[in-house]
Amino acid sequence: MKQPGPAWTAVPWKAVSIDDPFWTPHLRINREHTLPQIYRICQETGRIDALRLNWKPGMEPVLHIFWDSDVAKWLEAASYSLATPALEAHVDEVISLIVAAQQPDGYLNTYFTVVEPTKRWTNLRDWHELYCAGHLIEAAVAHFQATGKRVLLDALCRYADYIDTVFGTEPGKRRGYPGHEEIELALVKLYRVTGEKRYLQLSQYFVNERGRQPHYFDSEARQRGEDPADFHHKTHEYSQAHLPVREQDKVVGHAVRAMYLYSAMADLAHELHDQSLFDAEQRLWDHLCTTRLYITGGLGPSRHNEGFTADYDLPNESAYAETCAAIGFVFWNHRMLQLDCNARYADMLECALYNGVLSGVSLDGQTFFYENPLASPGTHHREPWFRVACCPPNIARLLASLGQYIYAVNERDLAVHLYMQSTAQLSVAGHEVTVRQETAYPWDGTITLRFDMDEPAMFGLRLRLPGWCQDARLTVNGEAFDLARHLEQGYVRVERVWQANERIELELAMPVERRYAHPNVRQDAGLVALQRGPLVYCLEGADQNVPLQRLVVPRTAELTSHFEPDILGGVTVIQGNALFEDDTGWAGRLYRSWPTSLQPGAITAIPYYAWDNRQAGEMRVWLRDGGS
Amino acid sequence: MKQPGPAWTAVPWKAVSIDDPFWTPHLRINREHTLPQIYRICQETGRIDALRLNWKPGMEPVLHIFWDSDVAKWLEAASYSLATPALEAHVDEVISLIVAAQQPDGYLNTYFTVVEPTKRWTNLRDWHELYCAGHLIEAAVAHFQATGKRVLLDALCRYADYIDTVFGTEPGKRRGYPGHEEIELALVKLYRVTGEKRYLQLSQYFVNERGRQPHYFDSEARQRGEDPADFHHKTHEYSQAHLPVREQDKVVGHAVRAMYLYSAMADLAHELHDQSLFDAEQRLWDHLCTTRLYITGGLGPSRHNEGFTADYDLPNESAYAETCAAIGFVFWNHRMLQLDCNARYADMLECALYNGVLSGVSLDGQTFFYENPLASPGTHHREPWFRVACCPPNIARLLASLGQYIYAVNERDLAVHLYMQSTAQLSVAGHEVTVRQETAYPWDGTITLRFDMDEPAMFGLRLRLPGWCQDARLTVNGEAFDLARHLEQGYVRVERVWQANERIELELAMPVERRYAHPNVRQDAGLVALQRGPLVYCLEGADQNVPLQRLVVPRTAELTSHFEPDILGGVTVIQGNALFEDDTGWAGRLYRSWPTSLQPGAITAIPYYAWDNRQAGEMRVWLRDGGS
Repeated sequence: MKQPGPAWTAVPWKAVSIDDPFWTPHLRINREHTLPQIYRICQETGRIDALRLNWKPGMEPVLHIFWDSDVAKWLEAASYSLATPALEAHVDEVISLIVAAQQPDGYLNTYFTVVEPTKRWTNLRDWHELYCAGHLIEAAVAHFQATGKRVLLDALCRYADYIDTVFGTEPGKRRGYPGHEEIELALVKLYRVTGEKRYLQLSQYFVNERGRQPHYFDSEARQRGEDPADFHHKTHEYSQAHLPVREQDKVVGHAVRAMYLYSAMADLAHELHDQSLFDAEQRLWDHLCTTRLYITGGLGPSRHNEGFTADYDLPNESAYAETCAAIGFVFWNHRMLQLDCNARYADMLECALYNGVLSGVSLDGQTFFYENPLASPGTHHREPWFRVACCPPNIARLLASLGQYIYAVNERDLAVHLYMQSTAQLSVAGHEVTVRQETAYPWDGTITLRFDMDEPAMFGLRLRLPGWCQDARLTVNGEAFDLARHLEQGYVRVERVWQANERIELELAMPVERRYAHPNVRQDAGLVALQRGPLVYCLEGADQNVPLQRLVVPRTAELTSHFEPDILGGVTVIQGNALFEDDTGWAGRLYRSWPTSLQPGAITAIPYYAWDNRQAGEMRVWLRDGGS
Repeated sequence: MKQPGPAWTAVPWKAVSIDDPFWTPHLRINREHTLPQIYRICQETGRIDALRLNWKPGMEPVLHIFWDSDVAKWLEAASYSLATPALEAHVDEVISLIVAAQQPDGYLNTYFTVVEPTKRWTNLRDWHELYCAGHLIEAAVAHFQATGKRVLLDALCRYADYIDTVFGTEPGKRRGYPGHEEIELALVKLYRVTGEKRYLQLSQYFVNERGRQPHYFDSEARQRGEDPADFHHKTHEYSQAHLPVREQDKVVGHAVRAMYLYSAMADLAHELHDQSLFDAEQRLWDHLCTTRLYITGGLGPSRHNEGFTADYDLPNESAYAETCAAIGFVFWNHRMLQLDCNARYADMLECALYNGVLSGVSLDGQTFFYENPLASPGTHHREPWFRVACCPPNIARLLASLGQYIYAVNERDLAVHLYMQSTAQLSVAGHEVTVRQETAYPWDGTITLRFDMDEPAMFGLRLRLPGWCQDARLTVNGEAFDLARHLEQGYVRVERVWQANERIELELAMPVERRYAHPNVRQDAGLVALQRGPLVYCLEGADQNVPLQRLVVPRTAELTSHFEPDILGGVTVIQGNALFEDDTGWAGRLYRSWPTSLQPGAITAIPYYAWDNRQAGEMRVWLRDGGS
């Protein structure tokens, strides 16, 4: 297995300012519409009042075990976004409620404080107690980073300190770990802002203990008087607790849980230089990316376990592909990049971000997909909220912290993972540098970078050459740079003494590409997908004259693209000649002995992320491939 | 709308003896293995002991509301099959138990006698009280026809008499009707054997009352203190009770319920010369056959309502296509044929029988499909029994009474609907005639008919020219008969004075045919099915070298057939050249920008009914169609 290279540090969200033609409208809508809406719904549904701890048996609504996490994710997102006094007032109010809800021993969970006070820590397998703690910790870290205020951070440190007294291998402690992973990655964040090693060790304990025999979830079930075999999901693969994590080599079970676990494993491998964890991560990542990942970066095809099924089983209409799972895949890839600056991780991060994540929210920021299928007969639509409401605040916090995914530094190099018009303040090789990136990505593949610094600075610049790009050119101050001789794991590396305002220009050719799936993917057999740059495209009924399955895209058909400013907030569409099946001779018949004839026609495809933003109708990503 | 022609009468099962190379093995296995197995499981699961009425609260197992129907269907099937003393002893024992279980007022239902004695007739919408009554009536009619013994028939007449005092439009009666249709067609059978008009009128009442406003199921729910809007299935379409039956023009809801209702409507249209019912039937039949029917004669694609979804929505892997629904479709078509001797009904009866029904039982008669998908990744297998066990005894009774579907007579003509080697005793145009049919159908399309009678007899002979057949020839005593000039609704009609032992020979060309689905069926787009004669074919993993989705059948590929005596009890297989996708260059990739290459290969297809009788593996009916 590959050894990790020198560790990288992501340039944090606070040091990066995004001013991008593509992303800025989404981020503004997230801040101005999505966040206030989530707050309002948290109010209306009782999630915020729940923090007052005045629920009594018989009252409606009854708190739910994951409500704390919904508020926490909103709080995290709002903390990244603090810009208006109104938002700040809500944030401060919620923080006061959270702090006041903390119990004398440091415990902090509304459900198990007021609804089931005798059940604390009795069902880690099924309930979301440590998961909620993790989200509160992430919110506290974000609020501290945003404001420098310690009140929430201190409260969550006290909670983490308390949890540390409850769980561990020492005599008298419970040898448990969460059914829904999340606290593991949160504790690493808490360690990074506080420097408190115990938090890192507690995360390490949770990850190491997972899947060991005798199995904690089974003994815990017996302690509740239950038969462990009665577990609803039958197998501990559901929560990746079927084996110790270093022995796992297949992505299984609930997809969000898997992504959060793998993210924490990457964090720990990074902090602890743990080669065995990194080895397991590479096996799991390879397995996912070669057998179980949708072309959109979506993952977890099944509704039943909200997760993985079998290799190459990627149904399109029934794809679950939860928004949170694609978000978790972004988290994981981001952490892998900090271990290993390999473009394959950034390619997957980009793929998920621009497709399977961004599809999760409408263009107006008001409605959300929980599931992100790759085809729809016209019955799948975004909704303002869900009873299980993990996705809306999750996408809100990802968008609000988007800046952190663009740049990373190590002691010698600056890496640019994503192309997004932005300015970053960072320190590389001992120099304080301002990086300015200009681009109209993903519509256009030209990226210009300039540095600003007090004095010339020697460092390496790594620019990702996306896996989708077949033809890239780089100039430095107008002079061609030989890419092929300076490639490192999918990045072109330019090391030199940089002067202020030198112009680095990368041109990524962005033609329309046809994409094919592995022949073992039975659901995509005979089909082709269209992609341009990082964007996967789809057909929507609104742009076509016939039902989508009647359209065939010949291999010889030229496919062109152009920007349409007036639809879907402005998108580049793909157009081309196609054939369509007519219905001559089909009246009164459902089956017949001669094939349907094909007529010349045309298609217009839109980016997948933008579907279901117009009148309701059909959609499909995988189109009929017109012959060899 | 078409007027019904002169009414036809099916030649009953008792008058027909099947001695057919294809069917006789299935019928023997049904009699010798399936029926004893169902009896044994009914014993083991408590279904037969339930008839002793000694269940008390707290005892296990608790009776279930549809147990009576399982025993009744077994009893009906066993009655058709009475041949061995052992079977007869079981039949007599069960009949004694049923008769002893009848209450003084005539009521006869184990569940509502011992488990919920206060709930009689309180939930017709959800419970199966009248449904169970219907199956008991059908069993009683079958046993009476088989043996001439009246004991069970008399008991069920008393039950029907009692039901007639409970339901109806007269003051003091309940204006209810069953949530699960069945008793309607059973009452017509009871009327036909007893001549008691009240049974026909009760059936007519149930059918006419269905779907009227104010809605009985809603008022009944209110009487139970429930909100009618809380109905689990949301809409009375579920039980075809959303509209009065004569206003219905779309097949909706639970597929078995629909088939049983439509069967009863045909019976009533026949008995009562009711044109408005016949009109509704033709609309419903057209809607089903042009928009919602699988090529196998299976129907009802959705597991959620065990029934219909939207026009042209015919998913293959997730097809529910319950065995009982295809059986019900046989029942309905058989009844339509008695109203209108139109080959379209016999074609559909044949299609369902040879494909979607016969697939429901394994070749050894020991395991059953509840669901009959048209594709499987290898995970769908027959089972010996189901918790809801309607299918096994249903297919057993259909096979045991198969003789009744072959021939029909009216006052002038004899019609041959199905081709099956058999002998029938019948009366046509005042003559007693023995019909002998010889054939190796469905493997071979040659059918020879001879009549035996005391004296020459003038009548019309109608022979169905199957819709799948493009080339038919008929000779009478070796002389060619001009088919085209004597076609009536898909039947060739030969009217003459027949002599004993004249030889009528029909030759139906039976090449391999490619079949295509309507271009609105998105799940079959770009795909082709193979058929030969009435049999739909499929690929099974056992016969192929690569995963099935990798195989492409070029339109130019010659497809041949030959009989294989040594597999699957002897079947004609289809073989031909095909192309298959190799996996060159796919290692480590899930998606790529260039298509998979095709190599020359071959396919072997087997009849759909015979799948899942060897090692477990993939199956698909719809194959990739290799280009135009």
